[in-house]
Amino acid sequence: MRDISIHDLDDIAMGAAVLGTGGGGDPYIGKLLARSAMKDRPPVTLLDVEELDDEALVIPTAMMGAPTVMVEKIPSGDEVITAIRSLGEYLGREVVATMPMEAGGVNSMIPFAVAAREGLPVVDADGMGRAFPELQMVTPTIWGIGATPMAIADDKGNSAVLNTISNHWTETFARSLTVDMGASALIALFPMTGKQVKEATIPGTLSLIQRIGSAIRESHEEHTDPVEAVCEATGGFAIWEGKVGDVARRTVGGFARGTASIQGVGDYEGRTLEIDFQNEFLIARDGDDVLVSTPDLITVLDAETGEPITTESLRYGFRVAVLGIPSDHRWRSEKGLELVGPEYFGYDFAFSPVERRMG
Amino acid sequence: MRDISIHDLDDIAMGAAVLGTGGGGDPYIGKLLARSAMKDRPPVTLLDVEELDDEALVIPTAMMGAPTVMVEKIPSGDEVITAIRSLGEYLGREVVATMPMEAGGVNSMIPFAVAAREGLPVVDADGMGRAFPELQMVTPTIWGIGATPMAIADDKGNSAVLNTISNHWTETFARSLTVDMGASALIALFPMTGKQVKEATIPGTLSLIQRIGSAIRESHEEHTDPVEAVCEATGGFAIWEGKVGDVARRTVGGFARGTASIQGVGDYEGRTLEIDFQNEFLIARDGDDVLVSTPDLITVLDAETGEPITTESLRYGFRVAVLGIPSDHRWRSEKGLELVGPEYFGYDFAFSPVERRMG
Repeated sequence: MRDISIHDLDDIAMGAAVLGTGGGGDPYIGKLLARSAMKDRPPVTLLDVEELDDEALVIPTAMMGAPTVMVEKIPSGDEVITAIRSLGEYLGREVVATMPMEAGGVNSMIPFAVAAREGLPVVDADGMGRAFPELQMVTPTIWGIGATPMAIADDKGNSAVLNTISNHWTETFARSLTVDMGASALIALFPMTGKQVKEATIPGTLSLIQRIGSAIRESHEEHTDPVEAVCEATGGFAIWEGKVGDVARRTVGGFARGTASIQGVGDYEGRTLEIDFQNEFLIARDGDDVLVSTPDLITVLDAETGEPITTESLRYGFRVAVLGIPSDHRWRSEKGLELVGPEYFGYDFAFSPVERRMG
Repeated sequence: MRDISIHDLDDIAMGAAVLGTGGGGDPYIGKLLARSAMKDRPPVTLLDVEELDDEALVIPTAMMGAPTVMVEKIPSGDEVITAIRSLGEYLGREVVATMPMEAGGVNSMIPFAVAAREGLPVVDADGMGRAFPELQMVTPTIWGIGATPMAIADDKGNSAVLNTISNHWTETFARSLTVDMGASALIALFPMTGKQVKEATIPGTLSLIQRIGSAIRESHEEHTDPVEAVCEATGGFAIWEGKVGDVARRTVGGFARGTASIQGVGDYEGRTLEIDFQNEFLIARDGDDVLVSTPDLITVLDAETGEPITTESLRYGFRVAVLGIPSDHRWRSEKGLELVGPEYFGYDFAFSPVERRMG
């Protein structure tokens, strides 16, 4: 158990965007949200998963939608309070803590905004150890934990509580409602007991992203290589250096989909890396050679500052370094790969761990 | 207060399809549903609105979706029980009665299926006095009564409870969920007190449709003109006789939309009536001359049997009589026309009562 103050948010949001693998929202917007809620309030308590009572009700909170839209439509924070309260009322039980479900620039911050306003602790864990585009793509799904009852709320005052027979159905319904709500919505979902959080989520994610963020900050202060600092903090591999070329981008069915090409420089001169994304980066390939694929993380960093670049802010001419980061071992299980492996996203090759390709 | 037995269902479903104005679902499917629930159970009590306690909680029940889909996907009846129970639980109050919200072949029957299975009475009223395609198009909307909290359920076991800031938003969300659920869903909505039912709904609709249905049946038994019998029972006008020509039909956004042309015979020889529909018939015109328009009712009857024909069963070559029936006076108010007048459906002419055109 330790306190998270408003001054810690920079590192956490920055580190979250590294694991956000191009998605998970703009860390700047995430910070704005959490800051405005934490301002003039006491620090938020960060709980280790082991500190949770087995019976405690934990309700994760998040934003849903295309990150490109989040940039234009910053939530007030009231929506997510509506969501967590209506779910708590629906369940008729006291909410003991909230937590993130994904490590992304926005979705790492939403639980802090909720925690500050509701006087709740945040659990140091998440359901992905990275960001993924669809709601069922979390480790609790591997453990058979339902996403519902789930609450969803918009900025206008509309809300809904869903009860579904599978987490894929939850994704379908919540995605449609999110599109109707203006392409982004706030959600409270996967209500879990402390016991379930301990078994089925990824512990320590918030501490990890804070360490990643502080590694980038310290590299600036100490004038060391920030890209190397991120590799060390994440266990990742530098797989490419180059300049952003074309970025084909479209918002389809509530997702930001597209492909970015990175023209190699230095060792990579004359070759082009193609990165496909659906909110998050999915596949990075050099011609027919797949260098990194989901569920492993593909992270694009500003080559000079080491700061992560999200898909929506990728622009022609940016000088970038691309990292491949091993995913949590839970994703590499058979059930994990069924949920988030290359085949799920329509690719016809099997997953191969980044460290094996790079080793 | 009187009993409705399984033997009354034929007349009620048939009469409902007359007021269903081409939509509201196939009366045959409606009957199947209500019959299987009422079989081996005591008759259902039909309550006059005046017999309701002012404080009583009434929850209307209905099917939502494109009627063309209902034909292929007959609900088991379990979905609507899920819907009304989850809404009752959500409200934390005892449900005292159910009622229909529209007079249509399916939606007049759903409340009887619910009533039989739940041991509830049905209120002799509805929210339209006809059928309309969208959820907010009911007289309670005119009185400012919210459609939510509303429950929606599908045949797979999925459900949701919506809370919205307006009945238009309820329509938007529920329509998306209905499309996701396979283009039809069962709903429980517009929870009202007895006082609200008395003020804001259309009393006596179920008795009216039973009279219409029995008038058709008796005309068969007595070998009298069934079309005339329907005109008498409804206060309607025979506006056309002809043969169905082309029917252009497509399912868009969860609605069956299209246009049917009726080639005139007899007095109408050489002219063609065009009827536009969105689940229900909206506008009937002879060239530029609008004969009947929403909110007044356009009903297509089999010329020989007087039986109503729904948009999904309109076929080339059918010999038909077309009726214009005055709508309930509530729809002809300024607020009523805002909700369901020709302008709402994108037409650029003002409503004119059918009896004025025909008088």
